[in-house]
Amino acid sequence: MTDEATAFVPGHITGFFSAHRDDDPTKAGSRGCGVTLTDGVTVTVESAEETELLLDGEPIDVEPVRTVLETLEAAARVEAESDLPLGAGFGVSGAMALGTALAANRVFDRRLSTNELVTVAHGAEVKAGTGLGDVVAQAHGGVPIRLEPGGPQYNELDSIPARARVEYVSFGQLSTAEVLSGDTERLTAAGREALSLVVDEPTLPSLLYASRRFAREAGLLTPRVREALEDVAAVEGHASMAMLGDTVFAFGTGLSDAGYDPTVCATHPAGATLK
Amino acid sequence: MTDEATAFVPGHITGFFSAHRDDDPTKAGSRGCGVTLTDGVTVTVESAEETELLLDGEPIDVEPVRTVLETLEAAARVEAESDLPLGAGFGVSGAMALGTALAANRVFDRRLSTNELVTVAHGAEVKAGTGLGDVVAQAHGGVPIRLEPGGPQYNELDSIPARARVEYVSFGQLSTAEVLSGDTERLTAAGREALSLVVDEPTLPSLLYASRRFAREAGLLTPRVREALEDVAAVEGHASMAMLGDTVFAFGTGLSDAGYDPTVCATHPAGATLK
Repeated sequence: MTDEATAFVPGHITGFFSAHRDDDPTKAGSRGCGVTLTDGVTVTVESAEETELLLDGEPIDVEPVRTVLETLEAAARVEAESDLPLGAGFGVSGAMALGTALAANRVFDRRLSTNELVTVAHGAEVKAGTGLGDVVAQAHGGVPIRLEPGGPQYNELDSIPARARVEYVSFGQLSTAEVLSGDTERLTAAGREALSLVVDEPTLPSLLYASRRFAREAGLLTPRVREALEDVAAVEGHASMAMLGDTVFAFGTGLSDAGYDPTVCATHPAGATLK
Repeated sequence: MTDEATAFVPGHITGFFSAHRDDDPTKAGSRGCGVTLTDGVTVTVESAEETELLLDGEPIDVEPVRTVLETLEAAARVEAESDLPLGAGFGVSGAMALGTALAANRVFDRRLSTNELVTVAHGAEVKAGTGLGDVVAQAHGGVPIRLEPGGPQYNELDSIPARARVEYVSFGQLSTAEVLSGDTERLTAAGREALSLVVDEPTLPSLLYASRRFAREAGLLTPRVREALEDVAAVEGHASMAMLGDTVFAFGTGLSDAGYDPTVCATHPAGATLK
Protein backbone atom coordinates (compact mmCIF):
# COMPACT_ATOMS: atom_id res chain seq x y z
CA MET A 1 0.00 0.00 0.00
CA THR A 2 1.33 3.43 -0.94
CA ASP A 3 0.12 6.60 0.79
CA GLU A 4 -1.33 8.27 -2.25
CA ALA A 5 -1.50 7.90 -6.01
CA THR A 6 -2.38 10.26 -8.84
CA ALA A 7 -3.96 9.53 -12.19
CA PHE A 8 -4.53 11.75 -15.23
CA VAL A 9 -7.63 11.17 -17.32
CA PRO A 10 -8.09 13.07 -20.62
CA GLY A 11 -11.29 14.99 -21.20
CA HIS A 12 -13.62 13.51 -23.84
CA ILE A 13 -15.95 15.29 -26.22
CA THR A 14 -18.52 13.03 -27.85
CA GLY A 15 -19.45 14.18 -31.36
CA PHE A 16 -22.38 11.77 -31.79
CA PHE A 17 -23.75 8.69 -30.08
CA SER A 18 -26.58 6.23 -29.79
CA ALA A 19 -27.76 5.01 -26.38
CA HIS A 20 -27.97 1.31 -25.54
CA ARG A 21 -29.75 0.28 -22.38
CA ASP A 22 -29.22 -2.96 -20.51
CA ASP A 23 -30.04 -4.07 -16.98
CA ASP A 24 -26.38 -4.97 -16.61
CA PRO A 25 -24.50 -1.63 -16.44
CA THR A 26 -21.34 -3.29 -17.83
CA LYS A 27 -23.30 -4.15 -21.01
CA ALA A 28 -25.17 -0.84 -21.27
CA GLY A 29 -23.45 2.12 -22.90
CA SER A 30 -23.27 3.86 -26.22
CA ARG A 31 -21.93 3.61 -29.72
CA GLY A 32 -20.42 6.76 -31.16
CA CYS A 33 -17.29 8.74 -31.80
CA GLY A 34 -15.48 11.59 -30.12
CA VAL A 35 -12.15 13.04 -29.25
CA THR A 36 -10.04 12.78 -26.09
CA LEU A 37 -8.29 15.96 -24.97
CA THR A 38 -4.95 16.96 -23.47
CA ASP A 39 -7.13 19.07 -21.13
CA GLY A 40 -8.37 16.63 -18.52
CA VAL A 41 -8.73 15.75 -14.87
CA THR A 42 -5.95 14.92 -12.41
CA VAL A 43 -7.19 12.75 -9.55
CA THR A 44 -5.24 12.13 -6.35
CA VAL A 45 -6.43 9.46 -3.95
CA GLU A 46 -5.24 8.94 -0.40
CA SER A 47 -6.52 6.61 2.29
CA ALA A 48 -8.84 8.35 4.79
CA GLU A 49 -11.15 7.55 7.70
CA GLU A 50 -14.11 8.76 5.71
CA THR A 51 -14.66 9.26 2.00
CA GLU A 52 -14.36 12.88 0.92
CA LEU A 53 -14.34 14.35 -2.59
CA LEU A 54 -13.01 17.70 -3.75
CA LEU A 55 -13.07 19.25 -7.22
CA ASP A 56 -10.66 22.17 -7.62
CA GLY A 57 -10.58 22.50 -3.85
CA GLU A 58 -14.36 22.59 -3.33
CA PRO A 59 -16.33 19.72 -1.73
CA ILE A 60 -18.57 18.04 -4.32
CA ASP A 61 -20.68 14.90 -4.50
CA VAL A 62 -20.21 12.82 -7.66
CA GLU A 63 -22.20 9.60 -7.45
CA PRO A 64 -19.97 7.50 -9.78
CA VAL A 65 -16.91 8.33 -7.68
CA ARG A 66 -18.67 7.16 -4.51
CA THR A 67 -19.75 3.96 -6.28
CA VAL A 68 -16.19 3.27 -7.49
CA LEU A 69 -14.80 3.63 -3.96
CA GLU A 70 -17.54 1.40 -2.53
CA THR A 71 -16.84 -1.25 -5.16
CA LEU A 72 -13.13 -1.19 -4.33
CA GLU A 73 -13.99 -1.22 -0.59
CA ALA A 74 -11.92 1.90 -0.07
CA ALA A 75 -12.46 4.95 2.13
CA ALA A 76 -10.46 7.77 0.61
CA ARG A 77 -9.92 11.46 0.22
CA VAL A 78 -10.17 12.17 -3.50
CA GLU A 79 -8.85 15.47 -4.84
CA ALA A 80 -9.62 16.24 -8.48
CA GLU A 81 -8.15 19.16 -10.40
CA SER A 82 -9.74 19.90 -13.75
CA ASP A 83 -9.07 22.23 -16.68
CA LEU A 84 -12.57 21.54 -17.93
CA PRO A 85 -16.05 22.87 -17.09
CA LEU A 86 -18.39 20.38 -15.37
CA GLY A 87 -21.63 19.33 -17.09
CA ALA A 88 -20.63 20.92 -20.39
CA GLY A 89 -19.88 17.78 -22.41
CA PHE A 90 -16.24 17.04 -21.48
CA GLY A 91 -16.71 13.81 -19.56
CA VAL A 92 -15.55 15.27 -16.25
CA SER A 93 -17.65 12.89 -14.13
CA GLY A 94 -16.37 9.89 -16.10
CA ALA A 95 -12.81 11.16 -15.72
CA MET A 96 -13.24 11.52 -11.97
CA ALA A 97 -14.65 7.98 -11.71
CA LEU A 98 -11.91 6.43 -13.86
CA GLY A 99 -9.10 8.39 -12.22
CA THR A 100 -10.40 7.36 -8.80
CA ALA A 101 -10.47 3.69 -9.86
CA LEU A 102 -6.88 3.76 -11.19
CA ALA A 103 -5.44 5.64 -8.22
CA ALA A 104 -7.41 3.75 -5.53
CA ASN A 105 -6.36 0.41 -7.05
CA ARG A 106 -2.78 1.48 -6.45
CA VAL A 107 -3.21 3.04 -3.01
CA PHE A 108 -5.20 0.08 -1.66
CA ASP A 109 -3.22 -2.54 -3.60
CA ARG A 110 -6.37 -4.07 -5.11
CA ARG A 111 -4.44 -5.77 -7.94
CA LEU A 112 -7.13 -5.29 -10.56
CA SER A 113 -6.33 -5.10 -14.26
CA THR A 114 -6.99 -2.02 -16.38
CA ASN A 115 -10.08 -3.63 -17.95
CA GLU A 116 -11.46 -4.46 -14.50
CA LEU A 117 -10.96 -0.87 -13.32
CA VAL A 118 -12.53 0.53 -16.49
CA THR A 119 -15.48 -1.82 -15.99
CA VAL A 120 -15.97 -0.56 -12.42
CA ALA A 121 -15.86 3.11 -13.50
CA HIS A 122 -18.03 2.57 -16.61
CA GLY A 123 -20.65 0.65 -14.61
CA ALA A 124 -20.71 3.36 -11.92
CA GLU A 125 -21.19 6.10 -14.52
CA VAL A 126 -23.97 4.22 -16.35
CA LYS A 127 -25.77 3.46 -13.06
CA ALA A 128 -25.66 7.14 -12.10
CA GLY A 129 -26.95 8.18 -15.53
CA THR A 130 -24.15 10.72 -15.92
CA GLY A 131 -22.63 9.20 -19.06
CA LEU A 132 -22.64 6.17 -21.35
CA GLY A 133 -19.39 6.14 -23.27
CA ASP A 134 -16.93 8.63 -21.81
CA VAL A 135 -15.12 6.20 -19.52
CA VAL A 136 -14.22 3.62 -22.18
CA ALA A 137 -13.16 6.41 -24.55
CA GLN A 138 -11.04 8.06 -21.86
CA ALA A 139 -9.36 4.75 -21.10
CA HIS A 140 -8.50 4.42 -24.81
CA GLY A 141 -7.24 7.90 -25.72
CA GLY A 142 -6.85 9.35 -29.22
CA VAL A 143 -10.01 9.72 -31.30
CA PRO A 144 -11.95 6.61 -30.29
CA ILE A 145 -14.79 5.08 -32.29
CA ARG A 146 -17.18 3.10 -30.09
CA LEU A 147 -18.40 0.38 -32.44
CA GLU A 148 -20.15 -1.67 -29.76
CA PRO A 149 -21.45 -0.42 -26.40
CA GLY A 150 -20.54 -1.46 -22.87
CA GLY A 151 -17.49 -1.96 -20.73
CA PRO A 152 -14.27 -3.59 -21.98
CA GLN A 153 -15.68 -7.12 -21.69
CA TYR A 154 -18.42 -6.39 -24.20
CA ASN A 155 -17.54 -3.34 -26.25
CA GLU A 156 -15.59 -2.98 -29.45
CA LEU A 157 -13.41 0.05 -30.11
CA ASP A 158 -11.54 1.39 -33.11
CA SER A 159 -10.11 4.86 -33.64
CA ILE A 160 -9.36 7.53 -36.21
CA PRO A 161 -5.58 7.50 -36.78
CA ALA A 162 -5.03 11.26 -36.52
CA ARG A 163 -3.96 14.03 -34.18
CA ALA A 164 -5.16 17.62 -34.16
CA ARG A 165 -5.23 20.93 -32.37
CA VAL A 166 -8.65 21.27 -30.72
CA GLU A 167 -10.49 24.51 -29.96
CA TYR A 168 -13.58 24.74 -27.81
CA VAL A 169 -15.96 27.32 -26.38
CA SER A 170 -18.46 26.42 -23.69
CA PHE A 171 -21.60 28.53 -23.26
CA GLY A 172 -22.97 26.48 -20.36
CA GLN A 173 -24.35 23.19 -19.10
CA LEU A 174 -26.84 20.68 -20.46
CA SER A 175 -28.12 17.83 -18.29
CA THR A 176 -26.89 14.50 -19.66
CA ALA A 177 -29.26 12.67 -17.28
CA GLU A 178 -32.23 14.68 -18.60
CA VAL A 179 -31.54 14.02 -22.28
CA LEU A 180 -30.75 10.34 -21.66
CA SER A 181 -33.91 9.79 -19.60
CA GLY A 182 -36.14 11.24 -22.35
CA ASP A 183 -37.18 9.64 -25.64
CA THR A 184 -33.94 8.62 -27.29
CA GLU A 185 -35.35 6.90 -30.38
CA ARG A 186 -34.67 9.75 -32.80
CA LEU A 187 -31.26 10.27 -31.24
CA THR A 188 -30.37 6.61 -31.61
CA ALA A 189 -31.38 6.50 -35.28
CA ALA A 190 -29.30 9.62 -35.99
CA GLY A 191 -26.38 8.18 -34.02
CA ARG A 192 -26.41 4.95 -36.03
CA GLU A 193 -26.32 6.86 -39.30
CA ALA A 194 -23.46 9.07 -38.11
CA LEU A 195 -21.48 6.01 -37.01
CA SER A 196 -21.78 4.38 -40.40
CA LEU A 197 -20.44 7.57 -42.02
CA VAL A 198 -17.35 7.55 -39.78
CA VAL A 199 -16.77 3.81 -40.17
CA ASP A 200 -16.82 4.29 -43.96
CA GLU A 201 -14.35 7.13 -43.72
CA PRO A 202 -12.48 7.31 -40.41
CA THR A 203 -11.05 10.84 -40.75
CA LEU A 204 -11.37 14.01 -38.65
CA PRO A 205 -13.35 16.00 -41.27
CA SER A 206 -15.76 13.07 -41.54
CA LEU A 207 -16.17 13.03 -37.72
CA LEU A 208 -17.17 16.71 -37.72
CA TYR A 209 -19.52 16.28 -40.68
CA ALA A 210 -21.24 13.27 -39.09
CA SER A 211 -21.43 15.06 -35.73
CA ARG A 212 -23.09 18.18 -37.14
CA ARG A 213 -25.61 16.04 -38.99
CA PHE A 214 -26.31 14.11 -35.79
CA ALA A 215 -26.77 17.25 -33.68
CA ARG A 216 -29.29 18.62 -36.20
CA GLU A 217 -31.21 15.38 -36.73
CA ALA A 218 -31.37 14.52 -33.02
CA GLY A 219 -32.70 18.03 -32.35
CA LEU A 220 -29.99 18.79 -29.82
CA LEU A 221 -28.53 22.04 -31.22
CA THR A 222 -28.78 24.94 -28.79
CA PRO A 223 -29.26 28.47 -30.19
CA ARG A 224 -25.75 29.52 -29.22
CA VAL A 225 -24.12 26.41 -30.68
CA ARG A 226 -26.12 26.84 -33.91
CA GLU A 227 -24.89 30.41 -34.23
CA ALA A 228 -21.28 29.40 -33.58
CA LEU A 229 -21.48 26.63 -36.21
CA GLU A 230 -22.76 29.17 -38.73
CA ASP A 231 -19.96 31.59 -37.83
CA VAL A 232 -17.32 28.91 -38.26
CA ALA A 233 -18.84 27.72 -41.56
CA ALA A 234 -18.78 31.34 -42.81
CA VAL A 235 -14.96 31.33 -42.57
CA GLU A 236 -14.82 27.86 -44.17
CA GLY A 237 -14.00 26.11 -40.91
CA HIS A 238 -15.59 23.01 -39.46
CA ALA A 239 -16.97 22.60 -35.95
CA SER A 240 -19.63 20.67 -34.09
CA MET A 241 -21.40 20.42 -30.74
CA ALA A 242 -20.12 18.54 -27.68
CA MET A 243 -22.58 15.87 -26.52
CA LEU A 244 -23.97 16.81 -24.09
CA GLY A 245 -23.11 20.41 -23.32
CA ASP A 246 -23.86 23.89 -24.59
CA THR A 247 -20.39 23.66 -26.10
CA VAL A 248 -18.88 23.93 -29.58
CA PHE A 249 -15.57 22.38 -30.65
CA ALA A 250 -13.41 22.56 -33.78
CA PHE A 251 -10.18 21.11 -35.11
CA GLY A 252 -7.42 23.47 -36.19
CA THR A 253 -8.34 27.16 -35.95
CA GLY A 254 -12.04 27.05 -36.88
CA LEU A 255 -13.30 28.96 -33.85
CA SER A 256 -10.51 31.53 -33.59
CA ASP A 257 -10.78 32.24 -37.35
CA ALA A 258 -14.47 33.00 -36.74
CA GLY A 259 -13.59 35.61 -34.09
CA TYR A 260 -14.21 33.50 -30.99
CA ASP A 261 -11.75 33.30 -28.09
CA PRO A 262 -11.62 29.52 -27.65
CA THR A 263 -9.72 27.40 -25.17
CA VAL A 264 -7.01 25.57 -27.13
CA CYS A 265 -5.75 22.05 -26.47
CA ALA A 266 -5.11 18.95 -28.62
CA THR A 267 -6.17 15.37 -29.04
CA HIS A 268 -4.59 13.25 -26.31
CA PRO A 269 -2.46 10.38 -27.65
CA ALA A 270 -2.84 8.15 -24.57
CA GLY A 271 -5.66 6.84 -22.45
CA ALA A 272 -5.94 7.44 -18.71
CA THR A 273 -2.74 6.67 -16.80
CA LEU A 274 -1.25 6.72 -13.37
CA LYS A 275 1.29 9.49 -12.96
CA MET B 1 -2.35 13.82 -49.87
CA THR B 2 0.42 15.34 -47.78
CA ASP B 3 4.08 15.15 -48.80
CA GLU B 4 5.29 13.17 -45.83
CA ALA B 5 4.13 11.93 -42.45
CA THR B 6 5.93 10.69 -39.35
CA ALA B 7 4.80 8.14 -36.78
CA PHE B 8 6.34 7.12 -33.47
CA VAL B 9 6.01 3.49 -32.37
CA PRO B 10 7.16 2.45 -28.88
CA GLY B 11 9.55 -0.45 -28.51
CA HIS B 12 8.06 -3.62 -27.00
CA ILE B 13 9.71 -6.22 -24.81
CA THR B 14 7.76 -9.45 -24.48
CA GLY B 15 8.26 -11.12 -21.10
CA PHE B 16 6.51 -14.38 -22.02
CA PHE B 17 4.27 -15.66 -24.77
CA SER B 18 2.62 -18.66 -26.36
CA ALA B 19 2.48 -19.02 -30.13
CA HIS B 20 -0.81 -19.56 -31.98
CA ARG B 21 -0.69 -20.54 -35.61
CA ASP B 22 -3.45 -20.04 -38.14
CA ASP B 23 -3.53 -20.02 -41.93
CA ASP B 24 -5.08 -16.57 -41.70
CA PRO B 25 -2.29 -14.22 -40.51
CA THR B 26 -4.84 -11.86 -38.96
CA LYS B 27 -5.97 -14.72 -36.67
CA ALA B 28 -2.47 -16.07 -35.92
CA GLY B 29 -0.41 -14.43 -33.21
CA SER B 30 0.46 -14.89 -29.58
CA ARG B 31 -0.87 -14.63 -26.07
CA GLY B 32 1.47 -13.11 -23.52
CA CYS B 33 2.53 -10.01 -21.68
CA GLY B 34 5.23 -7.40 -22.05
CA VAL B 35 6.08 -3.77 -21.73
CA THR B 36 6.06 -0.94 -24.28
CA LEU B 37 8.96 1.51 -24.07
CA THR B 38 9.54 5.24 -24.44
CA ASP B 39 12.53 4.14 -26.55
CA GLY B 40 11.09 3.31 -29.93
CA VAL B 41 11.14 3.82 -33.66
CA THR B 42 10.31 7.02 -35.55
CA VAL B 43 9.17 6.30 -39.09
CA THR B 44 8.88 8.93 -41.82
CA VAL B 45 7.15 8.05 -45.07
CA GLU B 46 7.20 10.07 -48.26
CA SER B 47 5.87 9.25 -51.69
CA ALA B 48 8.59 8.00 -54.07
CA GLU B 49 9.00 6.50 -57.55
CA GLU B 50 10.32 3.30 -56.03
CA THR B 51 10.09 1.84 -52.54
CA GLU B 52 13.21 2.38 -50.49
CA LEU B 53 13.81 1.66 -46.80
CA LEU B 54 16.45 3.12 -44.49
CA LEU B 55 17.13 2.34 -40.84
CA ASP B 56 19.30 4.96 -39.13
CA GLY B 57 20.46 6.13 -42.54
CA GLU B 58 21.47 2.69 -43.87
CA PRO B 59 19.53 0.83 -46.58
CA ILE B 60 17.83 -2.26 -45.12
CA ASP B 61 15.28 -4.79 -46.29
CA VAL B 62 12.49 -5.53 -43.80
CA GLU B 63 9.90 -7.85 -45.32
CA PRO B 64 6.90 -6.71 -43.22
CA VAL B 65 7.49 -3.09 -44.26
CA ARG B 66 7.49 -4.07 -47.94
CA THR B 67 4.29 -6.07 -47.39
CA VAL B 68 2.58 -3.13 -45.67
CA LEU B 69 3.43 -0.79 -48.56
CA GLU B 70 2.22 -3.34 -51.11
CA THR B 71 -1.05 -3.80 -49.21
CA LEU B 72 -1.59 -0.03 -49.14
CA GLU B 73 -0.60 0.18 -52.83
CA ALA B 74 2.03 2.75 -52.00
CA ALA B 75 5.54 3.29 -53.36
CA ALA B 76 7.43 5.22 -50.71
CA ARG B 77 10.73 6.19 -49.22
CA VAL B 78 10.62 5.04 -45.60
CA GLU B 79 13.17 6.42 -43.15
CA ALA B 80 13.25 4.80 -39.71
CA GLU B 81 15.26 6.13 -36.78
CA SER B 82 15.56 3.82 -33.80
CA ASP B 83 16.97 3.99 -30.27
CA LEU B 84 16.79 0.21 -30.08
CA PRO B 85 18.98 -2.65 -31.31
CA LEU B 86 17.53 -4.79 -34.13
CA GLY B 87 16.84 -8.48 -33.53
CA ALA B 88 17.37 -8.20 -29.78
CA GLY B 89 13.78 -8.51 -28.58
CA PHE B 90 12.50 -4.93 -28.83
CA GLY B 91 9.96 -5.34 -31.61
CA VAL B 92 11.84 -3.10 -34.04
CA SER B 93 10.53 -4.89 -37.15
CA GLY B 94 6.96 -4.66 -35.82
CA ALA B 95 7.47 -0.99 -35.04
CA MET B 96 8.74 -0.30 -38.54
CA ALA B 97 5.76 -2.11 -40.06
CA LEU B 98 3.20 -0.33 -37.87
CA GLY B 99 4.84 3.09 -38.23
CA THR B 100 4.91 2.63 -42.00
CA ALA B 101 1.20 1.71 -42.02
CA LEU B 102 0.18 4.77 -39.95
CA ALA B 103 2.34 7.23 -41.89
CA ALA B 104 1.59 5.80 -45.36
CA ASN B 105 -2.15 5.89 -44.62
CA ARG B 106 -1.79 9.62 -44.07
CA VAL B 107 0.56 10.39 -46.97
CA PHE B 108 -1.50 8.42 -49.50
CA ASP B 109 -4.86 9.38 -47.95
CA ARG B 110 -5.97 5.73 -47.69
CA ARG B 111 -8.65 6.53 -45.06
CA LEU B 112 -8.20 3.32 -43.08
CA SER B 113 -9.03 3.10 -39.38
CA THR B 114 -6.44 2.38 -36.71
CA ASN B 115 -7.65 -1.24 -36.38
CA GLU B 116 -7.37 -1.73 -40.14
CA LEU B 117 -3.81 -0.39 -40.16
CA VAL B 118 -2.83 -2.53 -37.17
CA THR B 119 -4.32 -5.56 -38.95
CA VAL B 120 -2.22 -4.86 -42.05
CA ALA B 121 1.00 -4.49 -40.01
CA HIS B 122 0.26 -7.48 -37.74
CA GLY B 123 -0.53 -9.71 -40.72
CA ALA B 124 2.65 -8.62 -42.51
CA GLU B 125 4.78 -9.38 -39.43
CA VAL B 126 3.18 -12.81 -38.88
CA LYS B 127 3.59 -13.70 -42.57
CA ALA B 128 7.28 -12.79 -42.42
CA GLY B 129 7.75 -14.80 -39.21
CA THR B 130 9.48 -11.85 -37.53
CA GLY B 131 7.00 -11.52 -34.67
CA LEU B 132 3.61 -12.62 -33.36
CA GLY B 133 2.43 -10.05 -30.84
CA ASP B 134 4.60 -6.94 -30.96
CA VAL B 135 2.41 -4.98 -33.37
CA VAL B 136 -0.83 -5.24 -31.38
CA ALA B 137 1.07 -4.46 -28.15
CA GLN B 138 2.77 -1.45 -29.76
CA ALA B 139 -0.57 -0.15 -30.99
CA HIS B 140 -1.91 -0.39 -27.41
CA GLY B 141 0.92 1.08 -25.32
CA GLY B 142 1.44 0.71 -21.58
CA VAL B 143 1.99 -2.81 -20.24
CA PRO B 144 -0.32 -4.84 -22.47
CA ILE B 145 -1.59 -8.33 -21.66
CA ARG B 146 -2.45 -10.28 -24.81
CA LEU B 147 -5.31 -12.50 -23.63
CA GLU B 148 -6.29 -13.75 -27.08
CA PRO B 149 -4.05 -13.88 -30.16
CA GLY B 150 -4.44 -12.22 -33.54
CA GLY B 151 -5.08 -8.80 -35.00
CA PRO B 152 -7.62 -6.32 -33.56
CA GLN B 153 -10.60 -8.11 -35.12
CA TYR B 154 -9.89 -11.29 -33.19
CA ASN B 155 -7.63 -10.56 -30.23
CA GLU B 156 -8.45 -9.53 -26.69
CA LEU B 157 -6.19 -7.18 -24.76
CA ASP B 158 -6.01 -6.03 -21.18
CA SER B 159 -3.14 -4.27 -19.40
CA ILE B 160 -1.33 -3.87 -16.09
CA PRO B 161 -2.31 -0.43 -14.72
CA ALA B 162 1.19 0.74 -13.81
CA ARG B 163 4.12 2.82 -15.01
CA ALA B 164 7.79 2.23 -14.31
CA ARG B 165 11.35 3.16 -15.10
CA VAL B 166 12.79 0.41 -17.33
CA GLU B 167 16.44 -0.63 -17.56
CA TYR B 168 17.83 -2.95 -20.22
CA VAL B 169 21.11 -4.43 -21.39
CA SER B 170 21.40 -6.20 -24.72
CA PHE B 171 24.18 -8.75 -25.26
CA GLY B 172 23.19 -9.57 -28.83
CA GLN B 173 20.65 -11.02 -31.21
CA LEU B 174 18.51 -14.14 -31.21
CA SER B 175 16.55 -15.18 -34.30
CA THR B 176 12.81 -14.92 -33.65
CA ALA B 177 12.13 -16.77 -36.89
CA GLU B 178 14.38 -19.67 -35.79
CA VAL B 179 12.78 -20.12 -32.37
CA LEU B 180 9.26 -19.77 -33.78
CA SER B 181 9.88 -22.27 -36.57
CA GLY B 182 11.11 -24.92 -34.11
CA ASP B 183 9.10 -27.09 -31.72
CA THR B 184 7.05 -24.62 -29.70
CA GLU B 185 5.03 -27.09 -27.58
CA ARG B 186 7.04 -26.67 -24.39
CA LEU B 187 7.15 -22.92 -24.94
CA THR B 188 3.38 -22.73 -25.41
CA ALA B 189 2.70 -24.70 -22.21
CA ALA B 190 5.04 -22.46 -20.22
CA GLY B 191 3.47 -19.36 -21.80
CA ARG B 192 -0.06 -20.43 -20.81
CA GLU B 193 1.01 -20.93 -17.21
CA ALA B 194 2.76 -17.56 -17.08
CA LEU B 195 -0.33 -15.84 -18.50
CA SER B 196 -2.59 -17.30 -15.83
CA LEU B 197 -0.21 -15.97 -13.16
CA VAL B 198 -0.39 -12.43 -14.56
CA VAL B 199 -4.16 -12.56 -15.08
CA ASP B 200 -4.56 -13.57 -11.42
CA GLU B 201 -2.33 -10.72 -10.30
CA PRO B 202 -1.81 -8.00 -12.92
CA THR B 203 1.15 -6.21 -11.33
CA LEU B 204 4.71 -5.46 -12.50
CA PRO B 205 6.43 -7.76 -9.96
CA SER B 206 4.13 -10.57 -11.04
CA LEU B 207 5.02 -9.91 -14.72
CA LEU B 208 8.74 -10.30 -13.94
CA TYR B 209 8.18 -13.41 -11.81
CA ALA B 210 6.05 -15.08 -14.50
CA SER B 211 8.54 -14.06 -17.21
CA ARG B 212 11.56 -15.56 -15.42
CA ARG B 213 9.66 -18.78 -14.84
CA PHE B 214 8.68 -18.85 -18.52
CA ALA B 215 12.25 -18.24 -19.74
CA ARG B 216 13.54 -21.12 -17.59
CA GLU B 217 10.74 -23.57 -18.41
CA ALA B 218 10.80 -22.83 -22.13
CA GLY B 219 14.56 -23.38 -22.12
CA LEU B 220 15.27 -19.99 -23.67
CA LEU B 221 17.73 -18.49 -21.15
CA THR B 222 21.09 -17.64 -22.68
CA PRO B 223 24.23 -17.93 -20.52
CA ARG B 224 24.70 -14.16 -20.33
CA VAL B 225 21.06 -13.50 -19.45
CA ARG B 226 21.16 -16.23 -16.78
CA GLU B 227 24.22 -14.60 -15.23
CA ALA B 228 22.62 -11.14 -15.29
CA LEU B 229 19.44 -12.47 -13.63
CA GLU B 230 21.55 -13.99 -10.85
CA ASP B 231 23.45 -10.72 -10.42
CA VAL B 232 20.23 -8.73 -10.15
CA ALA B 233 18.69 -11.26 -7.73
CA ALA B 234 21.84 -10.99 -5.55
CA VAL B 235 21.03 -7.30 -4.92
CA GLU B 236 17.34 -8.15 -4.34
CA GLY B 237 16.26 -6.74 -7.68
CA HIS B 238 13.99 -8.33 -10.25
CA ALA B 239 14.69 -8.73 -13.94
CA SER B 240 13.86 -11.05 -16.81
CA MET B 241 14.76 -11.84 -20.41
CA ALA B 242 13.38 -10.07 -23.49
CA MET B 243 11.63 -12.50 -25.87
CA LEU B 244 13.38 -13.00 -28.21
CA GLY B 245 16.79 -11.46 -27.75
CA ASP B 246 19.96 -11.97 -25.77
CA THR B 247 18.65 -9.11 -23.64
CA VAL B 248 17.80 -8.60 -19.98
CA PHE B 249 15.37 -5.98 -18.65
CA ALA B 250 14.36 -4.77 -15.18
CA PHE B 251 11.99 -2.28 -13.61
CA GLY B 252 13.38 0.43 -11.33
CA THR B 253 17.14 0.19 -10.75
CA GLY B 254 17.62 -3.61 -10.74
CA LEU B 255 20.40 -3.69 -13.34
CA SER B 256 22.29 -0.59 -12.25
CA ASP B 257 22.18 -1.76 -8.61
CA ALA B 258 23.83 -4.97 -9.81
CA GLY B 259 26.68 -3.03 -11.38
CA TYR B 260 25.53 -3.09 -15.01
CA ASP B 261 25.48 -0.02 -17.21
CA PRO B 262 21.96 -0.33 -18.61
CA THR B 263 20.09 1.83 -21.07
CA VAL B 264 17.33 3.60 -19.14
CA CYS B 265 13.86 4.43 -20.43
CA ALA B 266 10.29 3.99 -19.12
CA THR B 267 7.02 2.32 -19.93
CA HIS B 268 5.27 4.24 -22.72
CA PRO B 269 1.80 5.46 -21.77
CA ALA B 270 0.46 5.61 -25.33
CA GLY B 271 0.30 3.32 -28.31
CA ALA B 272 1.79 4.16 -31.70
CA THR B 273 0.80 7.62 -32.97
CA LEU B 274 1.29 9.98 -35.84
CA LYS B 275 3.47 12.92 -34.88
